Amino acid sequence: MTDTVISSASREVRIGFEQPFMIIGERINPTGRKVLAEEMKQGDYSRVVQDAIAQVQSGAGMLDVNAGIPLADEPKILAECIQLVQSVTDVPLSIDSSVVAALEAGLEVYQGKPLLNSITGEEERLEAVLPLVAKYSCAVVAISNDEAGISENPDERFDVARKIVERAADYGIHHSDIVVDPLVMPVGAVSSAGRQVLHLVKRLREELKVNTTCGASNFSFGIPNRRGMDGHFLSMVIGAGMTSAITNPLHEEVMQGVMAADVAMGHDQNCVKWLKKYRQSAEVHDMFVEARNGRSGRRRRRAVVA
Amino acid sequence: MTDTVISSASREVRIGFEQPFMIIGERINPTGRKVLAEEMKQGDYSRVVQDAIAQVQSGAGMLDVNAGIPLADEPKILAECIQLVQSVTDVPLSIDSSVVAALEAGLEVYQGKPLLNSITGEEERLEAVLPLVAKYSCAVVAISNDEAGISENPDERFDVARKIVERAADYGIHHSDIVVDPLVMPVGAVSSAGRQVLHLVKRLREELKVNTTCGASNFSFGIPNRRGMDGHFLSMVIGAGMTSAITNPLHEEVMQGVMAADVAMGHDQNCVKWLKKYRQSAEVHDMFVEARNGRSGRRRRRAVVA
Repeated sequence: MTDTVISSASREVRIGFEQPFMIIGERINPTGRKVLAEEMKQGDYSRVVQDAIAQVQSGAGMLDVNAGIPLADEPKILAECIQLVQSVTDVPLSIDSSVVAALEAGLEVYQGKPLLNSITGEEERLEAVLPLVAKYSCAVVAISNDEAGISENPDERFDVARKIVERAADYGIHHSDIVVDPLVMPVGAVSSAGRQVLHLVKRLREELKVNTTCGASNFSFGIPNRRGMDGHFLSMVIGAGMTSAITNPLHEEVMQGVMAADVAMGHDQNCVKWLKKYRQSAEVHDMFVEARNGRSGRRRRRAVVA
Repeated sequence: MTDTVISSASREVRIGFEQPFMIIGERINPTGRKVLAEEMKQGDYSRVVQDAIAQVQSGAGMLDVNAGIPLADEPKILAECIQLVQSVTDVPLSIDSSVVAALEAGLEVYQGKPLLNSITGEEERLEAVLPLVAKYSCAVVAISNDEAGISENPDERFDVARKIVERAADYGIHHSDIVVDPLVMPVGAVSSAGRQVLHLVKRLREELKVNTTCGASNFSFGIPNRRGMDGHFLSMVIGAGMTSAITNPLHEEVMQGVMAADVAMGHDQNCVKWLKKYRQSAEVHDMFVEARNGRSGRRRRRAVVA
């Protein structure tokens, strides 16, 4: 039972084995979004605000904020975006950058205890980022690759994760403040990608006792019906013990997968969230079918096998 | 690695740890289907034939055949239906009845090696059905309840399953010919229902090394958006190691869950089935969006985190 506590100025959330799955909204990220990148570079953050609000309304419990724009002043833009996002929503943030100076700029302005995204097993990165995690008492995403790249052997990725946890301990960072990303490969290229993650999530949870996260949509890269695949991939990895993901809460298929998995894991008590979301649409559907057929449109109930 | 081999006169299929998930079509069952029940009672099996063909076309690798109609001659009707279904499709069948005489009537006319559905841990049932399984060298579904009913403790259900496997061994029946149903409870009534099944599937697979099946739609009994829940429940239990289910292949949500899980488990090599099903609709979608927007409607690709 490991809880990773993250907070804003006024709200505390938990990523944990016995918590509802944590959705970290991925949208505030200019990578691959030309218009957003250009706007952010010009200091126009209106779309950042829209994305923040829309993602929280759709079910994100945290937001990832990334300002990785080529030839831009990333530390300045990231810090400004974090301040702005914290002014329009109270969900805690993940400060996301590959540039250490940007991470530090974000940490300096952040109100609360953020999730720093990310550290890897690379020596240089460990030495640069772990002191920041210790100094600011934040949590951190640990990505399980190192100088050798991303191993296709999941057990080697596990070893990288363990190394990071051990090195963090040297800085006084508790394993509950490390959220491991086991790295999701595109299944269209690596056919064992799914089983790798299922295997790793179990080991990470049982042996390192850490929480986990992933960029879930990497799995469906290059194949059709990506959203459908994303939703099912998420429900499967949640079933295996994954506790958070950086993903898009605006995608209905993703949310349905997460909500169904929360029900199945016993993390949506009495199916309250599921009922709230789907009862109304079910009633509308039944009314429609009844009106059309002149009779009850409710489907037959298959009895429990006994 | 346990394979359960089932066959018709001309086709052999396998339920197994390293096989694509086996969908056993549930539709040929008069329980709760008044019109079908009345027709079957009158000897009109036209709907049985339609259900058989439609389910196989939708992806069922096997069909369950049940003729449980109150006050009808179940052994006669079940035997007739089995002969008829075997004349219109070559997929192997599951012979489904709570009446031992009906199971025997089905076994007598069946061509190939069927799956007998079912045995329980009840003494009377064990003594009546195990000799049939041995005599006809068929496989059998073992439901993990006994005289005490269905335990809410999954480990007690595991013990029932183990007892059945051990008793079957006394009759010379190999554990690969036993497909255990861990019993899926409605999550609307039993909030731990999902975790019970995830836990049981792992134990059944690792300790008893048996294949598993379930009546998947029991899980969503009484809650809205049942099909969406059924699809995600299936992908989760497949991720945990379930190898077959008695379910409705005509439901798109169910098929999507199974197909996505086959991809994630590495049982749809090179995503061939997924691509076949969704590539065309993706292309149609892209054409539509392009026509509407006057530009490429393809979604941005999120790069692999590195």
